Amino acid sequence: MPKLASVLKRLVVGRPFRTDRLAHTLLSKRIALPVFASDAMSSVAYAPEEILITLSVAGVAGYTYSLWIALAVVLLMLAVVASYRQNVHAYPSGGGDYEVATVNHGPRSGLVVASALLVDYVLTVSVSISSAAANIGSVVPFVATHKVEFAVGAIVVLTALNLRGIRESGTVFAIPTYAFVVGILAMVVWGATRVVLLGQEIPAESASFGLVEEGDHLTGFALVFLVLRAFSSGSAALTGVEAISNGVPAFRKPKSKNAATTLLLMGVLAIVMFLGLIMLAAATRAKIAEDPARQLVGAPAGYEQKTLVAQLANAVFGGFDPAIWYVVFFTGLILVLAANTAFNGFPVLGSILAQDRYLPRQLHTRGDRLAFSNGIVGLAGFAIVLVVAFDAEVTRLIQLYIVGVFVSFVLSQSGMIRHWNRLLRADPERAAASRMRRSRAVNAVGLTMTGTVLVIVLITKFTKGAWIAIAAMGAIYLLMTAIRRHYDRVAAELREAELDTKTVTLPSRNHAIVLVSKLHLPTRRALAYARATRPDVLEAVTVNVDDADTRELVAQWEKEDFSVPLKVVESPYREITKPVLEYVKRVRGANPRDVVTVYIPEYVVGRWWEQFLHNQSALRLKGRLLFQPGVMVTSVPWQLASSERLKQRYRDRQELAPGAVRRGLSEKKDTK
Amino acid sequence: MPKLASVLKRLVVGRPFRTDRLAHTLLSKRIALPVFASDAMSSVAYAPEEILITLSVAGVAGYTYSLWIALAVVLLMLAVVASYRQNVHAYPSGGGDYEVATVNHGPRSGLVVASALLVDYVLTVSVSISSAAANIGSVVPFVATHKVEFAVGAIVVLTALNLRGIRESGTVFAIPTYAFVVGILAMVVWGATRVVLLGQEIPAESASFGLVEEGDHLTGFALVFLVLRAFSSGSAALTGVEAISNGVPAFRKPKSKNAATTLLLMGVLAIVMFLGLIMLAAATRAKIAEDPARQLVGAPAGYEQKTLVAQLANAVFGGFDPAIWYVVFFTGLILVLAANTAFNGFPVLGSILAQDRYLPRQLHTRGDRLAFSNGIVGLAGFAIVLVVAFDAEVTRLIQLYIVGVFVSFVLSQSGMIRHWNRLLRADPERAAASRMRRSRAVNAVGLTMTGTVLVIVLITKFTKGAWIAIAAMGAIYLLMTAIRRHYDRVAAELREAELDTKTVTLPSRNHAIVLVSKLHLPTRRALAYARATRPDVLEAVTVNVDDADTRELVAQWEKEDFSVPLKVVESPYREITKPVLEYVKRVRGANPRDVVTVYIPEYVVGRWWEQFLHNQSALRLKGRLLFQPGVMVTSVPWQLASSERLKQRYRDRQELAPGAVRRGLSEKKDTK
Repeated sequence: MPKLASVLKRLVVGRPFRTDRLAHTLLSKRIALPVFASDAMSSVAYAPEEILITLSVAGVAGYTYSLWIALAVVLLMLAVVASYRQNVHAYPSGGGDYEVATVNHGPRSGLVVASALLVDYVLTVSVSISSAAANIGSVVPFVATHKVEFAVGAIVVLTALNLRGIRESGTVFAIPTYAFVVGILAMVVWGATRVVLLGQEIPAESASFGLVEEGDHLTGFALVFLVLRAFSSGSAALTGVEAISNGVPAFRKPKSKNAATTLLLMGVLAIVMFLGLIMLAAATRAKIAEDPARQLVGAPAGYEQKTLVAQLANAVFGGFDPAIWYVVFFTGLILVLAANTAFNGFPVLGSILAQDRYLPRQLHTRGDRLAFSNGIVGLAGFAIVLVVAFDAEVTRLIQLYIVGVFVSFVLSQSGMIRHWNRLLRADPERAAASRMRRSRAVNAVGLTMTGTVLVIVLITKFTKGAWIAIAAMGAIYLLMTAIRRHYDRVAAELREAELDTKTVTLPSRNHAIVLVSKLHLPTRRALAYARATRPDVLEAVTVNVDDADTRELVAQWEKEDFSVPLKVVESPYREITKPVLEYVKRVRGANPRDVVTVYIPEYVVGRWWEQFLHNQSALRLKGRLLFQPGVMVTSVPWQLASSERLKQRYRDRQELAPGAVRRGLSEKKDTK
Repeated sequence: MPKLASVLKRLVVGRPFRTDRLAHTLLSKRIALPVFASDAMSSVAYAPEEILITLSVAGVAGYTYSLWIALAVVLLMLAVVASYRQNVHAYPSGGGDYEVATVNHGPRSGLVVASALLVDYVLTVSVSISSAAANIGSVVPFVATHKVEFAVGAIVVLTALNLRGIRESGTVFAIPTYAFVVGILAMVVWGATRVVLLGQEIPAESASFGLVEEGDHLTGFALVFLVLRAFSSGSAALTGVEAISNGVPAFRKPKSKNAATTLLLMGVLAIVMFLGLIMLAAATRAKIAEDPARQLVGAPAGYEQKTLVAQLANAVFGGFDPAIWYVVFFTGLILVLAANTAFNGFPVLGSILAQDRYLPRQLHTRGDRLAFSNGIVGLAGFAIVLVVAFDAEVTRLIQLYIVGVFVSFVLSQSGMIRHWNRLLRADPERAAASRMRRSRAVNAVGLTMTGTVLVIVLITKFTKGAWIAIAAMGAIYLLMTAIRRHYDRVAAELREAELDTKTVTLPSRNHAIVLVSKLHLPTRRALAYARATRPDVLEAVTVNVDDADTRELVAQWEKEDFSVPLKVVESPYREITKPVLEYVKRVRGANPRDVVTVYIPEYVVGRWWEQFLHNQSALRLKGRLLFQPGVMVTSVPWQLASSERLKQRYRDRQELAPGAVRRGLSEKKDTK
């Protein structure tokens, strides 16, 4: 539409005002991988462990299934990665699963995906931080005995950092993520070398322990159920895979291709680490019990079960502490980083939902710090509640986690199939048709597998805690539809009013009223400004709250000869709002076609508590005046010295909102 | 100053606007007594009991001092009543102790009195409600076992009633107060009749119990100390005596004389009830122990100690339950009423302190419900903290209570002596001099006695809890001086600015900017209104947050031919505040002598949660714009249908603020 564009250009006077301190720096694959994949790769830290923990219920015999389960998870991951490679090509706008579901299934499905993602953000924080606490607790006993406190403290610190606005950059993500990958791979390779090439025994500290079955010996259906449950828990490795599909716009060109390549790279790395850890666990005969005190036989008194990663690092690196600390430390760090991605992802999703009017409008402009802070505090609050309620136990939290992820996988994959069907129906003879059919097949495999997993997860985990996540999703869904309904109602109200009144009539006259309490500079300025608008009627009004004060004011007014009449409104009961309101109503009543402008002098202060000492009556009056039709309220500010303080702080404030890196934004100075 | 008055009158055009739904109804002595004396008379319900409890530490032998202590308290009460009769004549304005101390000792002393009174309001609530719980618990065992819950619940209910605005009237006070007085006096008279005239034995349920001394047998100094401590506790009977001196303006004429008579009447009634209860306690040999479980010997297993009033009612009225219930019920009720007086007294004192700029300005206008609500919630919150911290035990709470009362007694009485000295010095030969000298003597006796009691209270109760009250007074004192300092600093800043800029220059032109996001009715109205002010420059500005939306807006704008240019401000990062701010700054920079008026269309909503869905960006933008010198911000309201709801509620709202009855205000319809 070239005409519109030129109109647009013509109307823009001078150079457009840009908030030019930010620059768009697109991400190379090398940086995009850590930025988007920290969440997905960090889940490798707990997924293998959770498989072993679930199987431990069946005793050592249960562990024999671990490799098979791991292979199933790997297969699933391959299918999902392949599916999402189709997504990033078809929907490169960064809308992710929400967009795919909305476009292909309609807004309701989109909203289900959004609810699932919001719940998952909370769980990402609680699961990742709890796992970080468990890992760090494996080398620092104090943390192990104060796991909940440590986890809550970590969330609080993360919240504070995000509220202040941390300066994100690709490097912040890159170093710990690559260090983690290097650490885990080195451990796997060195472990394999010792076992296979050197023929050494590398028993874990728990290798010699016995493992007591919980309850009866499991057979038949119960055993199948247990294996399926272990598989469900292992599927936690897939959380975060969809992140790249939300970040396509931040990639360098060709965006989709680079994103797809990065996705594949991430999948391969995650699979190698995941399989490596499971195989090392088998080689070291590490035992991880659901209830260590009861299940572990032969453990020394007061034995504190370490995480799988810590046990493997100990076994593989023997007594070489620096290597052990390296692996455990970077495992903890990448988990914290994964939690942080939730803090970044939340406002991005919130912005998209606000644009579709499912969340309050102001979330749309992401620069908005206040709305954004509420989101961060809410996210942290819910995460803390979960951590405390579940004692920071990853095994218990993970039961809530995976439902949401697979709900959005399933809706997104089925949406993709509809997408291809539509395209193929529109033009079945196109050259690209065979490619589309191939893509559709990939997504179909993805849908079949994720759908099966969703059913398995629902069956095996519903009573274990998944119902909480589902209930929360339902509540969020209802809230968002209610908000949307409200906005729709308001829009309808305005449309109706528009039909009733074809044109807004220009008010015939402007009646200006300046509120006066004392004759000081703020009042003088308000008077001067009001006079500058050259109203048809200009008068000053004061409320007689105290006879002596009013007499003094009137005398002063007379003396200075303002040529503006001062009206004294009586208020025997020392109210301000009501008398002014009634006066304004009377003025309006006398000349209904006039518009009344009320000028209120206001102090501008720089400290939060000063607000309580100034302007309170003015604020309340303003709030009530706005209910009167035909009345405008004008604030005439008087900047107190302290306001400079706040102004300075606004100016200094870091303008980069969290999540900026994922959208390919950074501060300009960084890019030079 | 007749000239000023006429000037004032001339300036008032038409009839003055009065909030005429309220009428001034002055109180007869018959109604004033219950309105102002419920607090003082209710303390009779716990003061005698507290004397016995303190003495119980010395065993049954200790009780022999109770009558002497009671006589000392009566003497003290007579002296205080006589003193305050002087106060109401000398200071009939209703400023009470705060005014007397401020005028005669200076503002610092006044502030000490104010701090003491504020602390006492909190304690009035906690002590009265705790005592009410104990009394009601004496007939309803469930309340006895859930004392804290009951007390907290009662405070919450009272708070809710006061927040909603209860319709106070003299009758509400009169019935329970007189019923209480009648009940107690009937009990005393009937008890005396049975003992003296009929020669009957009326043993209390605890008459046969033994009372174990706590610790060693007390002699010498320790005994004196105990007796003094019992006297201190008994002095709780004096709390609330000063209330009438705050209420003189609400009396019928001759105000001071009527107030003085009412004060005397209240004193006599309180003294009779107080002495009657103490003598009945002796006649029935009632035992009240500090630690019933340890001290009472011969009590049945699981014995729950009843309050003195309940024990006496049981003993005097034998098995006649209605009489017993009557006495206990109205004792509980008057205590609740006494607690309510604190809710009423608080805003009245707050208003006076705000006038002197020791508290935020908006507390000055008592009609202000919001500020007022904060006060009520704060008062209730602190009272609940105390009730919970001290297990709703009157005996423990009372240790904190009396300090504040006597601090203000002492400062007020010494202030009165200065007052008389000053008058006598000014004109020693006046005819009234001898009356003045007599008044001074009365106040001197009052000062001596209250001063002595203050010292006794400080010595015997400091470590028992009085230090908490003193610390709280100190904190409040510091807070109030800090607030005053802030207001003084602002006033100085304005004076300085006034010296710098002799006159406020009239801005040369008015540059109007209308913010536009969509072209709907609120925007059209804002445009029409802005145009009605006939600015020198008028332009519409929109922030390009979304390219598609902006293109649509521009196209529409072109089509409608507004004759107002629309400027598009770019915002690549979807911010609103910053681009607008920079644009306004640029406009200001180009023409520094212009004033810029920014018109912001705003929705007016009627439900609290709708605020979160509308106007948030506008609000924030407004807040930031006010920091720019030379910029006015005008809200152009658009009333959504839901706003009618709130408007209606504002209209229906009960206009009578709590405490109104005490100031002689009532709703007009009541007075017809």
